[in-house]
Amino acid sequence: MRDMSVKLLLLSGNRHKYLEIKDIAREYGVDVTPLEGLKIEIQDDDLSNIALTAALIGYSLLRKPVLVEDAGLFIRALNGFPGPYSSYVFKTLGLNGVLKLMEGISERDACFKSVAVAVIHGEIIRGEGEVCGYITTMPRGNKGFGFDPVFAPREQPYRTFGEMDVEEKNKYSHRAKAVKAVFEKIREKAG
Amino acid sequence: MRDMSVKLLLLSGNRHKYLEIKDIAREYGVDVTPLEGLKIEIQDDDLSNIALTAALIGYSLLRKPVLVEDAGLFIRALNGFPGPYSSYVFKTLGLNGVLKLMEGISERDACFKSVAVAVIHGEIIRGEGEVCGYITTMPRGNKGFGFDPVFAPREQPYRTFGEMDVEEKNKYSHRAKAVKAVFEKIREKAG
Repeated sequence: MRDMSVKLLLLSGNRHKYLEIKDIAREYGVDVTPLEGLKIEIQDDDLSNIALTAALIGYSLLRKPVLVEDAGLFIRALNGFPGPYSSYVFKTLGLNGVLKLMEGISERDACFKSVAVAVIHGEIIRGEGEVCGYITTMPRGNKGFGFDPVFAPREQPYRTFGEMDVEEKNKYSHRAKAVKAVFEKIREKAG
Repeated sequence: MRDMSVKLLLLSGNRHKYLEIKDIAREYGVDVTPLEGLKIEIQDDDLSNIALTAALIGYSLLRKPVLVEDAGLFIRALNGFPGPYSSYVFKTLGLNGVLKLMEGISERDACFKSVAVAVIHGEIIRGEGEVCGYITTMPRGNKGFGFDPVFAPREQPYRTFGEMDVEEKNKYSHRAKAVKAVFEKIREKAG
């Protein structure tokens, strides 16, 4: 890095995502500003390819340091569905659609996965995060976003992400792990 | 067009799609050859944007006339799900997943939609097609591909696309309509 204070444009229109990332960023001396509308996402089963492409396209359009974070819920009994298309599935089927698909299925294992990619002065910095747990039988809580109310992490199997505030969710979450990995690398390079 | 005989590279690895398109193409004097691996698909709720981007990227990589066809099944009671992500949903949830989502739902209306885009000497030629009908309560037939065995068109409400051979399916199908619209325009320009 040329300079100690790193400013990243977060390519996302999702306010929840921004709120989860900004406090973590601050701990690492990174300043994150959300920017909507410049995230081009490809269709791919691998989150890493989606995040990497979006970050590189965003960087080449903006020529400024960017951060992209892409996540999905992978339900084992549904062969990884909804995976990379979680936000589309949330929008169309909602929590109840996913619970209906899980009706009568006792194997409730699922993982949230996240890939974060920063591009700074043309350099790619990538981080991954995962949190595994269970799909509940009904939605609980109205915090977080997306499928949070039907997912409970293994570490807190009786509490869903929907029942946790940002600070508590960030202790376990896939997204927190992925962006921490990126910020860690940025700090090392700066140090 | 500079030349009467038009050769198009179909950017698709889906053999069924190729088989449905090639006979129609021949009627219009168009020669279609499948080419796998060069179709970059974005995530978008609008098939038209997906097909257009893929065709333009393919054309700019190949510098040869290309054809892209993108399709999806839009189920009204599921807010359009699985829509543009039909092949991913077919791969993960399968026919039974979609039938499970439709359990207890009497409103079974659905439409298959298709957008075909050709790029020839830098010129964009676009066609759309749609066929509406019903989601059956169980799969029938092993012809076609994807969700064909659970979809019956309005014109033949007791037969699924999975029970029709290519020739019969092409009388009704979204894909046949979209590519015909494109080939029609190509013929007009050549004439």
